[in-house]
Amino acid sequence: MDKPQIGVVGMAVMGKNLALNIESRGYTVAIYNRTGSKTEKVVSDHPDKHLVPSYTIEDFVNSLEKPRRIMMMVKAGKPTDAVIAELLPHLDKGDVLIDGGNTFFEDTMRRNAELDNSGINFIGTGVSGGELGALEGPSMMPGGQKEAYDLVAPIFEKMAAKAEDGAPCVTYIGPNGAGHYVKMIHNGIEYGDEELIDESYNLLRNMLGLTVDEIADIFSEWNKGELDSYLIDITADILTRKDDLGSDKPIVDLIMDKGGNKGTGKWSSQNALALGVPQSLITESVYARYISVMKEERVAASKVLPKPEGKVEFDKDEVIEKIRQALYFSKIMSYAQGFEQMKVASKHYDWNLQFGEIAKIWRAGCIIRARFLQNITDAYNKDPELDNLLLDDYFKDIAKRYQEAIRDIVGLAVKAGVPVPGFSSAIAYYDSYRSAVLPANLLQAQRDYFGAHTYERVDREGIYHYPWYKEQ
Amino acid sequence: MDKPQIGVVGMAVMGKNLALNIESRGYTVAIYNRTGSKTEKVVSDHPDKHLVPSYTIEDFVNSLEKPRRIMMMVKAGKPTDAVIAELLPHLDKGDVLIDGGNTFFEDTMRRNAELDNSGINFIGTGVSGGELGALEGPSMMPGGQKEAYDLVAPIFEKMAAKAEDGAPCVTYIGPNGAGHYVKMIHNGIEYGDEELIDESYNLLRNMLGLTVDEIADIFSEWNKGELDSYLIDITADILTRKDDLGSDKPIVDLIMDKGGNKGTGKWSSQNALALGVPQSLITESVYARYISVMKEERVAASKVLPKPEGKVEFDKDEVIEKIRQALYFSKIMSYAQGFEQMKVASKHYDWNLQFGEIAKIWRAGCIIRARFLQNITDAYNKDPELDNLLLDDYFKDIAKRYQEAIRDIVGLAVKAGVPVPGFSSAIAYYDSYRSAVLPANLLQAQRDYFGAHTYERVDREGIYHYPWYKEQ
Repeated sequence: MDKPQIGVVGMAVMGKNLALNIESRGYTVAIYNRTGSKTEKVVSDHPDKHLVPSYTIEDFVNSLEKPRRIMMMVKAGKPTDAVIAELLPHLDKGDVLIDGGNTFFEDTMRRNAELDNSGINFIGTGVSGGELGALEGPSMMPGGQKEAYDLVAPIFEKMAAKAEDGAPCVTYIGPNGAGHYVKMIHNGIEYGDEELIDESYNLLRNMLGLTVDEIADIFSEWNKGELDSYLIDITADILTRKDDLGSDKPIVDLIMDKGGNKGTGKWSSQNALALGVPQSLITESVYARYISVMKEERVAASKVLPKPEGKVEFDKDEVIEKIRQALYFSKIMSYAQGFEQMKVASKHYDWNLQFGEIAKIWRAGCIIRARFLQNITDAYNKDPELDNLLLDDYFKDIAKRYQEAIRDIVGLAVKAGVPVPGFSSAIAYYDSYRSAVLPANLLQAQRDYFGAHTYERVDREGIYHYPWYKEQ
Repeated sequence: MDKPQIGVVGMAVMGKNLALNIESRGYTVAIYNRTGSKTEKVVSDHPDKHLVPSYTIEDFVNSLEKPRRIMMMVKAGKPTDAVIAELLPHLDKGDVLIDGGNTFFEDTMRRNAELDNSGINFIGTGVSGGELGALEGPSMMPGGQKEAYDLVAPIFEKMAAKAEDGAPCVTYIGPNGAGHYVKMIHNGIEYGDEELIDESYNLLRNMLGLTVDEIADIFSEWNKGELDSYLIDITADILTRKDDLGSDKPIVDLIMDKGGNKGTGKWSSQNALALGVPQSLITESVYARYISVMKEERVAASKVLPKPEGKVEFDKDEVIEKIRQALYFSKIMSYAQGFEQMKVASKHYDWNLQFGEIAKIWRAGCIIRARFLQNITDAYNKDPELDNLLLDDYFKDIAKRYQEAIRDIVGLAVKAGVPVPGFSSAIAYYDSYRSAVLPANLLQAQRDYFGAHTYERVDREGIYHYPWYKEQ
């Protein structure tokens, strides 16, 4: 066997699958895990693969071709710092350390700066696609020193998913924390996509009264059109599945409606708040998960807080199509907000993000992969300085044609008492963004009245304070 | 003159007004400012007051009665740390340092712990009411050592605003950062109140086509009923005011619609995200300010993104009353979320917050003072363990009676193209909270499908993973 061209630390399922993925592209891969038995098991399960196990950090590092490429697939946070501390004494200047975990981008910025002082390159890379993506080809979002990325690019390009046009779903994102940042936005957008699908499902189920089977067919049908995406596809599949523990009920009806989260959606919203970006749709999706967790309170409240009394009336087939349009309209608002956030972040952190390239590497491999990411790619290729996705012709046209549908659906849902926080925030964003004048003039008057916070005027330059307390 | 019973550091308008307020209650007050000329000016402007100026920190500290009470009214952040560092060498164990700035509660927790190690008591207190409130009586939210609070309580109770029943608007909130935390929630709620008023104004103006004068009358009328509050009152006043620079236009029409913020609303939302609390209404209010700031983008977008085509039809007087009801309904949802957040925070930070007491000290002095805070006080007095405000009879009854109105208003606004992010999030919260089943069951299936995140079931205990990838 060749001297390993790359090593992977951490043999949990993601690390193991990434190692096997890289090996399958013609590389020899060094592997290491704190608990040696896991390393042994990977080797014994895959006896024919070009895997080189080590059982001490020192042996692992020494087994590698130089400059060394080491990918850490360990738990984000303190475990990552611990592994870096173990590796550091054995590394040489110019080696490339890669963190493929779900790391908070500010940690990656810190680690990149600290290691750079020791001459060690540090890449933080988002890896999306779950266990299967890790094995067969994920979408990868690497950030760090450009020259370090060039050292791993050949491997990353082979291991990444390929879009329909054959392009690998990986590209250099930017310096220090840029890669993990873009992965955080990816995950936030994923929260939004899921919330919009779940609201659509809820409307089909509880406003239209359709069966789970009927809804599976609808999602299956939607997946053939402009909504074509991994998440719509698996939703259709999920809704066909029956209880695996024996009953003949749809599994979805047996699953507890408490939405979990691993924190990345929350981070993206906290960051939007910090940067001053109106990222309402993702944030509503995070909050929808939080309120779902309050199951016992909700069940109790459902018995005492009344439903709306009126009945909603509609044509079923027409409303199904309108829900589809509302979903697509809302999805566009969510991506407009997410890309807006990246635009502001790119300036704030000095990253020079390439939005067309980012959309391009999301076309395959990752959880949010979807046909319409090609439209986003096209939009930014046409105009890399595009202020907002909504101003691109394709998206403007959708907004124009589908706005009536989402207005009708939000109106119906609110009347029927089916919660649609995602849809509502989508249309509120659209209507706010296209408002030349918002009532923040009154807000500024209020703030100036009680707190002397001053205001600008529309008719002249400068900062003003009104004599509110003088006698009129 | 007596030896000063308390000293105030920082003679900007808030510090000066607080010092004059305290003096007016019969105390002698030591004053100090980094730039001595400001101190001089306060003394020369108020020659008959019991103010004792000092021009060095040492003289200032030495002028005080022991144990010393020193209130800092300086800029939050590094300036506060700088003043503490200057004061510390001159203080004795048992002295009480008070930070009355708009400080982030985690900074107060840190400072309280650090100073406690030196035997110095540290109180972080929220002070709400603006400049006028500082002078005439603010609402105060002090947190820190209880024994330290007892040393300042007589002064605080005299200087605070008094509610209609004569009760002072100050009470011990809890240990370390509890006071500044509750002030942060107060400010978040204030953002929500303002957003709801501004949405109502926008609907009256742009959906109903009323004049500014007509809207002033409506707010004035609303202020006589259950909406009676400081913010509604000043809104009515603002809308009567004409340009102070000579034109005969309403001033509100000349104020630039870019909503500013000082960060406390943002903090409250970031904290809600951290604690897992669905605080959607305040967050939408923060985002509404952010999108308002994108003025140039909005003006450009208004020319290319189309409005809805249909016309909305309604009875004007009926809709005005429904907007009033929608505003009150939404305000209740916002407070329900804010008190929920304090409930979770109280457990998380181990503060033992008394929600009835908090509502009680918000009845006067502060920006959100309103008649309905008496209803919240009553609700928590009746049941201190109340899970959610919505479960109290008074609020449940309002929700029941007003839900039709808010559903109609959101439907109309969305149809008319007037953004109502606050109203929409209010009804989404209500409908989510009273949903026994939310579509998070589908979400959990999706997360289990692509990420093996597992789920609970509704019919048995335990954690489950579905065999999605087995042949069906």
